[in-house]
Amino acid sequence: MSEDKLPSRSEDYNDWYNSLVIRADLADYGPARGTMIVKPYGWTLWENIQQALDRRFKSTGHVNAGFPMLIPKSFIDRETSHVEGFSPELAVVTVGGGKQLEEPLVVRPTSETIIGHTYAKWIKSYRDLPLLVNLWNSVVRWELRTKLFLRTLEFWWQEGHTAHATYEEAQEETRQMLDVYLDFARNEAAVPAFFGRKSDSERFPGADLTYSMEAMMGDKKALQAATSHNLGQNFARAFDIQYLDQNNEMQYCWTTSWGLSTRFIGAMIMTHGDDQGLILPPRLAPHQVVIVPIYKNHDEKALVMEVVERISRLLESSGLRLKIDNREGLTPGFKFNDWEMRGVPLRVEIGPRDVANESVGLARRDIPGRDGKSFVPQEGIGPVVEEILAKIQLELLERATAFRDANTHQPRDYAHFKEIVADGFAFTGWCGGEECETSIKNDTKATNRCMPFEQPKDVGLCIYCGRAAVEQVYFARAY
Amino acid sequence: MSEDKLPSRSEDYNDWYNSLVIRADLADYGPARGTMIVKPYGWTLWENIQQALDRRFKSTGHVNAGFPMLIPKSFIDRETSHVEGFSPELAVVTVGGGKQLEEPLVVRPTSETIIGHTYAKWIKSYRDLPLLVNLWNSVVRWELRTKLFLRTLEFWWQEGHTAHATYEEAQEETRQMLDVYLDFARNEAAVPAFFGRKSDSERFPGADLTYSMEAMMGDKKALQAATSHNLGQNFARAFDIQYLDQNNEMQYCWTTSWGLSTRFIGAMIMTHGDDQGLILPPRLAPHQVVIVPIYKNHDEKALVMEVVERISRLLESSGLRLKIDNREGLTPGFKFNDWEMRGVPLRVEIGPRDVANESVGLARRDIPGRDGKSFVPQEGIGPVVEEILAKIQLELLERATAFRDANTHQPRDYAHFKEIVADGFAFTGWCGGEECETSIKNDTKATNRCMPFEQPKDVGLCIYCGRAAVEQVYFARAY
Repeated sequence: MSEDKLPSRSEDYNDWYNSLVIRADLADYGPARGTMIVKPYGWTLWENIQQALDRRFKSTGHVNAGFPMLIPKSFIDRETSHVEGFSPELAVVTVGGGKQLEEPLVVRPTSETIIGHTYAKWIKSYRDLPLLVNLWNSVVRWELRTKLFLRTLEFWWQEGHTAHATYEEAQEETRQMLDVYLDFARNEAAVPAFFGRKSDSERFPGADLTYSMEAMMGDKKALQAATSHNLGQNFARAFDIQYLDQNNEMQYCWTTSWGLSTRFIGAMIMTHGDDQGLILPPRLAPHQVVIVPIYKNHDEKALVMEVVERISRLLESSGLRLKIDNREGLTPGFKFNDWEMRGVPLRVEIGPRDVANESVGLARRDIPGRDGKSFVPQEGIGPVVEEILAKIQLELLERATAFRDANTHQPRDYAHFKEIVADGFAFTGWCGGEECETSIKNDTKATNRCMPFEQPKDVGLCIYCGRAAVEQVYFARAY
Repeated sequence: MSEDKLPSRSEDYNDWYNSLVIRADLADYGPARGTMIVKPYGWTLWENIQQALDRRFKSTGHVNAGFPMLIPKSFIDRETSHVEGFSPELAVVTVGGGKQLEEPLVVRPTSETIIGHTYAKWIKSYRDLPLLVNLWNSVVRWELRTKLFLRTLEFWWQEGHTAHATYEEAQEETRQMLDVYLDFARNEAAVPAFFGRKSDSERFPGADLTYSMEAMMGDKKALQAATSHNLGQNFARAFDIQYLDQNNEMQYCWTTSWGLSTRFIGAMIMTHGDDQGLILPPRLAPHQVVIVPIYKNHDEKALVMEVVERISRLLESSGLRLKIDNREGLTPGFKFNDWEMRGVPLRVEIGPRDVANESVGLARRDIPGRDGKSFVPQEGIGPVVEEILAKIQLELLERATAFRDANTHQPRDYAHFKEIVADGFAFTGWCGGEECETSIKNDTKATNRCMPFEQPKDVGLCIYCGRAAVEQVYFARAY
């Protein structure tokens, strides 16, 4: 458990992150190289993320389905860019039921191909469109350098797959789902993100267009937190997804796909966490409130626990997710540290003095020390706690937004650019040339994260080659 | 869509089942042999099953987690009975990232082994016990003869895995989870089941004790609908799951596992379905009510749709899951058949005459023809519909229970036994000998389904060998 301090976040960010994931009880390494076990505390967080997203998917007309994890290997080869992107990362089943398979099966790295094959069967006419399906599952990509949540051999995610009659509808869907992700990130996870179009070199293999949201982590590196792809007619042509239109003519469909994964938990950790551990936004936290009873002997315990029970009933009747830490043999101080490590947004302390004063002590996780502490009357505590949680939720977003903006700069020249991306995001003009992107990457490790939809009238000059820019771009080093 | 009639249930049960699954839009075949795609309608049913179970798991103290699907192949070999049971069914990944793997990985057929490996790391002392974890995932078993929902290469399920300090606690858990399944099956799915202990030959590979629930399908065959295993110390010893007890001594844990899968959807289809298609219990149905508007022209449509909208708002405010079938170009008759095929428990018909009479027509899915139809006033329709749905739920259970009991008999002698198991369940004495079980199976295809916990005082003689019986047993042919 969390008796020792975490490595310092400012001194060794990587070590801080890895220790936090383990010590906050979020995840563990699986026995096969690069695999991850999501522990109950981390999984509950993932369930809360799932619910917040699923609600949004359903209210925008999507339905869930279940697709097989095993895909004939030949499927992957059907779309040219897709095969190039995914072939090196495949896990291949060559033996089944003790026999060598005639055609090997791959464990899905993503489901565009099996979806393409299936939609070609399901879609006959314009009446079958749009087809709006989402899958909650896990996928396998043979990553060589892995890190819990951020990059693991297997990860959990949702993958949306839609088919439309027109380009415009597919484009609208692609954009809508990016908005859904942004709304979720902002209002549930308190993660503010830049967003926009990916350059050709950063696009999903098989997409015409990829949109992404890019969040700034505590070490000022970027993390791609979700993507939404307009697949054009690429998969429709590769898998023959056609429909009979209203004029009785066969047309290829236009398809999209979009996804958000357990990687997002990494984004939350690195957006909000501090040297004491995790800080979770109240809307997604497994426990929004933890009550720690404080007593020295049996009599005090009886007095205190009576109030603890009463307060917990009050808070639970407000619909709050609550934990009472009644573990024996551990000091209150140990418990405080433990729940701080796990990022519970608000701690309620109840000791003999609180019983006498008919009050409780509150400690905000996001404001360490005295500034985050207050005493409030036991009466009417429900609405008070709800209000504080709402405030924490808002202030986490404000803090992350201020941090992001304070560390995003417009460079004067390339020397300045290099300084900026060594410790932040640069927002600057780009000529659109892949050579400039590559040179910048080789020089600085910073990549083109995304190009915002709304561009200034004057996009200026390319920060690398000095020619006229076509767009302004966020550059940053990224996870 | 469902324009043609289904094959008759009484004439060709197998053909009826397969056609129904496709025509009710529940599932489809995947491209790799034996795999299944669960379509949105079927998946929504599965989500409702998941929620009903998950609620019960959480209220009995379990938490969910996520475990990797890829397991080092050597793990499977660690428990003697387990390796014998599962080795022939494995899908093996031998290539990853373009390279031959040094140690092959198997796609989990079930997770006892990786759980064993992990619990050995997580569990240190008696304070860490009991550990009560459940996983929602999918598993792969290389089945040769597959059938949608009943037996597919990959299927979705939950697998619970718990570790305890004592045999008694593990035993209590094993029994508790069987009760959870029985309660779910009975009160949510309206599936009554016999339950009890499995004989040695039918036990889970690696368990000391397997409990199962056995439901009677419409063709009077048995379907094992869920199992709960007391694993004793078998996996604890194979994977070294030990804890320090209160006397500071190392002890092996006692573990359990229990599961219910998408197979249960097959059980629901075959318990309630009829020649018109699926019949779903209201508590799990994706749509509890479908409203079909009836009109001949534009004016009638305007009148009718106004009432449809009002009624739907009323019903949705009662929390009902509702579908309005406003598809154009389809006759009401077609729509009636379509929703009957999909098993929606209650149909609301609203036409011009209903508008004039301020009433609506109701048609119960479980009672075909006139007997299931009624007209009720629009005013106060919410509680009326809720009451009818509750009645349908109850009567489905009663009907299934009556059917099960009418087709379960106690044989006079072995000749009579053979007659009974040709078309029903036999409940009779068994000497406990595996030879008798095997002979019965070879003779009649009937297997020992389970042995009830409560046994009559006089268990009589073994139906096969005539020696003293040790227990009474349900015998039946099974899926």
